[in-house]
Amino acid sequence: MNSSDLLASFFAGSRRALAKVITAVENEASETPALLHAIYGRVGKAYRLGITGPPGAGKSTIVDELTKLLRRQDYSVGIVAVDPSSPFTGGALLGDRVRMADISVDPGVFIRSMATRGSLGGLSQKAQEAGDVLDAFGKDFVIYETVGVGQSELDIVETADTVIVVLVPESGDAVQAMKAGLMEIADVFVMNKSDRAGAARALHELSAILHLRPPAPWQPPVVPATASQGKGLEEIWQQVAAHREFLERHGQLHRKRRHRRESMIRELVARRLQQEFWDERAEQLLQEHLHNFPEHSLSPYDVVAALMQNAAARR
Amino acid sequence: MNSSDLLASFFAGSRRALAKVITAVENEASETPALLHAIYGRVGKAYRLGITGPPGAGKSTIVDELTKLLRRQDYSVGIVAVDPSSPFTGGALLGDRVRMADISVDPGVFIRSMATRGSLGGLSQKAQEAGDVLDAFGKDFVIYETVGVGQSELDIVETADTVIVVLVPESGDAVQAMKAGLMEIADVFVMNKSDRAGAARALHELSAILHLRPPAPWQPPVVPATASQGKGLEEIWQQVAAHREFLERHGQLHRKRRHRRESMIRELVARRLQQEFWDERAEQLLQEHLHNFPEHSLSPYDVVAALMQNAAARR
Repeated sequence: MNSSDLLASFFAGSRRALAKVITAVENEASETPALLHAIYGRVGKAYRLGITGPPGAGKSTIVDELTKLLRRQDYSVGIVAVDPSSPFTGGALLGDRVRMADISVDPGVFIRSMATRGSLGGLSQKAQEAGDVLDAFGKDFVIYETVGVGQSELDIVETADTVIVVLVPESGDAVQAMKAGLMEIADVFVMNKSDRAGAARALHELSAILHLRPPAPWQPPVVPATASQGKGLEEIWQQVAAHREFLERHGQLHRKRRHRRESMIRELVARRLQQEFWDERAEQLLQEHLHNFPEHSLSPYDVVAALMQNAAARR
Repeated sequence: MNSSDLLASFFAGSRRALAKVITAVENEASETPALLHAIYGRVGKAYRLGITGPPGAGKSTIVDELTKLLRRQDYSVGIVAVDPSSPFTGGALLGDRVRMADISVDPGVFIRSMATRGSLGGLSQKAQEAGDVLDAFGKDFVIYETVGVGQSELDIVETADTVIVVLVPESGDAVQAMKAGLMEIADVFVMNKSDRAGAARALHELSAILHLRPPAPWQPPVVPATASQGKGLEEIWQQVAAHREFLERHGQLHRKRRHRRESMIRELVARRLQQEFWDERAEQLLQEHLHNFPEHSLSPYDVVAALMQNAAARR
């Protein structure tokens, strides 16, 4: 299928075309810039949720249940699951996604896993682009889900319009969340597995930590939930809606989206600069230096100076 | 103190000068490239350990105990603790480091925390440079310790010569580790808190997962430990020594270090390119575009094309 046929199918609502466009984004295929350029006029309608938290907090279950709730209200949903890849499978680990069987056969839901490891960098950019593609396709909601709370995963979820941080009543979980930088990106907290012993204490601990923060126009609510039993989902949804209403009322939704666009442009520039710089001659200069490493080798700063000179001379 | 006085003190073994040079690296001070250039001739003697694992696995305790063990053998130690920062403190959270009181007063040990969040990118580069500074200062061992298992944290520890992954006997911890991409970077596994119930089963589970891997010249050993009681530290140290011996025998230590140098040069180039590109005119072009966002705005690809044209015209 050539690019214009692919785009025609995409705009006609073909799931297969959607999958192909996202695959092109993921593989940084040569036609990707042209495809994205063509769809950019339609980007901007979807509302984006980011869901993160420590491994084992039940993020996947919450995404599943929230998706079902959104589907009952007839919203269409796209899910970008940011999964680390593993050398055992050579790709994204789909363990969690298997549980999603009931939503993954729903034509109103589209799920894509993206791998963090082994990527040539730019995962955040790719996840962003995949969200844009789902948005342009007409999804009402795009949900970003992470496996862990790594920096690259946080970079992705924090571009969302509303960020949900999922914790469980483990001793010190709230403190660990603070240390992992989750406190500053959360718009809504969910204390999942609230049927467990210690839930009341954990909720109290989290509230106490939140009260240490300076007052802000939006105070992140804490929602107790037991997602595996479908409990608390309505409340999570209400808090997401309240946060959205808050963002719109204060013009912050527009600011967030403009910021997202700015980051994207800066990232695209960074990639273009790298591609232009590392031509055959530059690679050769670098390899000559490394060949002599560590004896008789220049300081890395001398090597960079030589490389920059080479690039200037080439122009 | 000017740069040459600072360097003289540094090479004379002043801890204060060491602290100042690392601070210059962390702040990307204008004199940093010159300082690093001056010390590069002395880089390459320290052996580097990376220690990672999920929050709460006891990594700090293992670093403490391992440091004490190394000190008993009269080795000097530098520790770079990669801590997420928090809006509450405005800097790196030092909770874990407080426990290190007994080693932090030892003049043979130098500890520095570096923050992941709020950094202008390049944390991996800065942590690398801090390790180089400790190396040039004459430390025999440089230990990188992370709080969590985020991508940027893994990027840092995996540049180490030997990577230790610390797990605890929690249900499914080994599976979570696999999902977080820890399996592929581990040279030595430590099953900490092995006095807990379920330790035998967890060890068995981890071994079973490891046996799924294709045979490799180095098979990561699994060391049970209870670091809080000082148990298992000798065994960890023996496995680190065995791995080092393996690397040296197969020429891999040299390859790792050359690779580290290569990554550093590529990162320095990327930063230089960005600095050169984003001059006043480029920033202005970007802001003009964002001002019109989202109505009447160009596609991000058009904006990038305009920016690249501007850069080309400037030369």
